[in-house]
Amino acid sequence: MTASTSLTTHTAQAGHFYAVGIGPGSPDLLTLRAARLVEQCDVILSPQARNSKKSLALEAVRPFLDQQEVLVNNYPMERNDQKTRDRWQLLAQDVAKRCAAGQSVVQVTLGDPLIFATSSYLLQGLAELMPANKLHVVPGISAFQTTASRFADALTLQEDRLTLMSATNLDAVEEALDHCETLVLYKAGCCIEELMERLRQRDLLANAKLVSCGEQGDHELVVDDLSQWQVTPLNYMTTMIIKIGNRPWQEV
Amino acid sequence: MTASTSLTTHTAQAGHFYAVGIGPGSPDLLTLRAARLVEQCDVILSPQARNSKKSLALEAVRPFLDQQEVLVNNYPMERNDQKTRDRWQLLAQDVAKRCAAGQSVVQVTLGDPLIFATSSYLLQGLAELMPANKLHVVPGISAFQTTASRFADALTLQEDRLTLMSATNLDAVEEALDHCETLVLYKAGCCIEELMERLRQRDLLANAKLVSCGEQGDHELVVDDLSQWQVTPLNYMTTMIIKIGNRPWQEV
Repeated sequence: MTASTSLTTHTAQAGHFYAVGIGPGSPDLLTLRAARLVEQCDVILSPQARNSKKSLALEAVRPFLDQQEVLVNNYPMERNDQKTRDRWQLLAQDVAKRCAAGQSVVQVTLGDPLIFATSSYLLQGLAELMPANKLHVVPGISAFQTTASRFADALTLQEDRLTLMSATNLDAVEEALDHCETLVLYKAGCCIEELMERLRQRDLLANAKLVSCGEQGDHELVVDDLSQWQVTPLNYMTTMIIKIGNRPWQEV
Repeated sequence: MTASTSLTTHTAQAGHFYAVGIGPGSPDLLTLRAARLVEQCDVILSPQARNSKKSLALEAVRPFLDQQEVLVNNYPMERNDQKTRDRWQLLAQDVAKRCAAGQSVVQVTLGDPLIFATSSYLLQGLAELMPANKLHVVPGISAFQTTASRFADALTLQEDRLTLMSATNLDAVEEALDHCETLVLYKAGCCIEELMERLRQRDLLANAKLVSCGEQGDHELVVDDLSQWQVTPLNYMTTMIIKIGNRPWQEV
């Protein structure tokens, strides 16, 4: 597949690293820039959680693969900051060596590389090893945008505050409900029953929607009113949107 | 330009409306889906603030224009909820008529159609006039993602809370600083001097970065440390990122 033919900026350059967001999983939700960099680079680095059957990121860019070298980077999902940074530091050393040898390297990341993404650790490692002008980030569609698009309903307007966080700490979630008009919860599957109970107590359950595995073909689940939904087990990649209120313009 | 050749989903259908996010302004930051819908639709609707010289959205999609009918929709920038909704309701009636007559209509919007975007008003108007299965949203790269990509620095990791809001009410901005780890301010140009003074008082000025007119060619301004910057007048499209702290994982 040819991503585009006449746009001439942002081609993969020898010795450069690109953290490329590829969106939620549909190949046609890559940006033209992302697709071209994937097509043109020498090496594609694809993260894969060790408990996954396949790399979703690699599946999403498959239409753009040809002769590139593909490195699948297995990593365990563990909530330990130091171990996580040590692991990505090792990978950063390998990437820096490849770039020093003149290769162009693209890391493909589901969503956006700077929003709750492992790309950030690799970038932080590389920042110590490579000049800043050889490190690039291409933004991608993040899961909260995919989720919102399913409902065609504004996330935020006028003076609204939109907050994004993970649903792992429900006390923190409750605090956030008091300080924004729209709350987005990543990893909403991890504690869905207790989360729903807390929303019910605040009379917010009918204001909550979720999408699991958005834009990932047959795996997608869309729930547009949680008060009408019978709970089923949810994938790790579940995003919830809770509309709490509105903050209209103040007349000037 | 041909956006893609072999992806077969999401083609513009007769009688359907598409709110399409086109990202910050570079044509190669459209998604493949957005580019294809723009190429294939019968009618392109492009909003243009009445005080702008040209429609930035239309400039961004120019490489994808051919025989489509282009409607530039002039609107005044005014902070009045009812007048705004009335104006978009009129436009919604025109769009619904065109769709009823079998046309496919794409509204192109800078950024994402559901994040501080006028598209949301049109969608709300259309929701009363057309069946939901004929209304579609294609997410786009929002300004905060473009801004963050310029600095290759994580917006949010682990248990961080990320809040997006406009900078028009500085008391609300100060309150938000107490309830998130990363704060993104849209329209940061509107009161930049007082905003910087408040950040200085909280010792956060060196943690603040901004991009004005990101990915809009020669108009782009990038400031990676506001404490080292001599204030200059800023465009309406200025986005600031303030890193307040981090919330690491709690060990399980």
